[in-house]
Amino acid sequence: MKLYGYYRSSAAYRVRIALNLKGLEYESVPVHLLKDGGQQLSHTYRELNPTALVPTFTDDNVSIGQSLAIIEYLEEAYPGTFPLLPDTYAARARVRSLAQFIACDIHPLNNLRVLKYLTRNLGVSDEAKNEWYLHWVREGFDSLEKILASSSQTGKFCHGDTPTLADICLVPQVANARRFNLDLTPYPSIVRIDAACNKEEAFIKAAPANQADAE
Amino acid sequence: MKLYGYYRSSAAYRVRIALNLKGLEYESVPVHLLKDGGQQLSHTYRELNPTALVPTFTDDNVSIGQSLAIIEYLEEAYPGTFPLLPDTYAARARVRSLAQFIACDIHPLNNLRVLKYLTRNLGVSDEAKNEWYLHWVREGFDSLEKILASSSQTGKFCHGDTPTLADICLVPQVANARRFNLDLTPYPSIVRIDAACNKEEAFIKAAPANQADAE
Repeated sequence: MKLYGYYRSSAAYRVRIALNLKGLEYESVPVHLLKDGGQQLSHTYRELNPTALVPTFTDDNVSIGQSLAIIEYLEEAYPGTFPLLPDTYAARARVRSLAQFIACDIHPLNNLRVLKYLTRNLGVSDEAKNEWYLHWVREGFDSLEKILASSSQTGKFCHGDTPTLADICLVPQVANARRFNLDLTPYPSIVRIDAACNKEEAFIKAAPANQADAE
Repeated sequence: MKLYGYYRSSAAYRVRIALNLKGLEYESVPVHLLKDGGQQLSHTYRELNPTALVPTFTDDNVSIGQSLAIIEYLEEAYPGTFPLLPDTYAARARVRSLAQFIACDIHPLNNLRVLKYLTRNLGVSDEAKNEWYLHWVREGFDSLEKILASSSQTGKFCHGDTPTLADICLVPQVANARRFNLDLTPYPSIVRIDAACNKEEAFIKAAPANQADAE
């Protein structure tokens, strides 16, 4: 198994956590999103993944883009490993819904290519760009905090007392928010769950700072 | 089953197609995204879905936000119905990857709240706002066209000859692109598959124009 990613990419970070939780060995192939005008835009990488986005995951003859599709694949193809989704349909829906809220409604507005477009194409100031970043994370975290704080299904982690796909999405988003100096005080449940995750070896090993390509 | 949505919401449109393909009866509850300053922001709707996003789907005691989480739920909870994912792990990964590319990397940049922020908070002109819209859809469709045109797994639909989750995401995105007058000439595979879908009753019944709350 190979994971083409970048130490700071939230989407690659998610897949690393999932692989670690499942105890699956993989080779990490760095794709530098800034060097050489963005190595993800190179001909070689586009041959592997025409969307020019990281991560890409390969397993024998299978090549998959999109972090959540990769994780669902791992969940299905390696059923004997640590489960990332709970058992009941309703619980699985709750976990997927939390994960996708982060992956579809918070993260995409704040990735590198979007922030670049704001400054380069729209002439937005660095200050307004940071405000854009903080706005969408705050809006997302406001809702997420409410959901996590109000539900009896929330436990030590986003859903119950073992990590799931929801935590896999939460932790990289929190790391990202810290990098942009978002004040996390209004989000005690998010901070508590993030701290619980970051005590687990699978999460620690997956952290950006602990990757071979970290700078 | 109840689906809280808006006729023009791409995410609600996806769930309508899924429910129709599966032959599941549901009650449609309109949430007007513009009226009353946005009915999704009301206290009542937030009680149901704290993210204030449409759609929300309810089935007995289960309440789910996020279109793809809803569709995965339908797939798991109603196994006797028309399958929206293929059989093999690799094929399921391809379909989920296509779906999530649209749902995570094209659609979120172009929904109403984002376009509003551009004009209201960043003072972007209507012209630059439209260019923003077209930029992200073009960038997405460029990759998608390549993937669809180059793979022997593409058939009458995005994956093989029956509709899947990938088509469920594609059709609302194409409808949206048409609304913003994107020139679709460079995307013959996308146009062909969209046309094939729009001959199917499940897709026709789910179209924005055919909803009770259509204007």
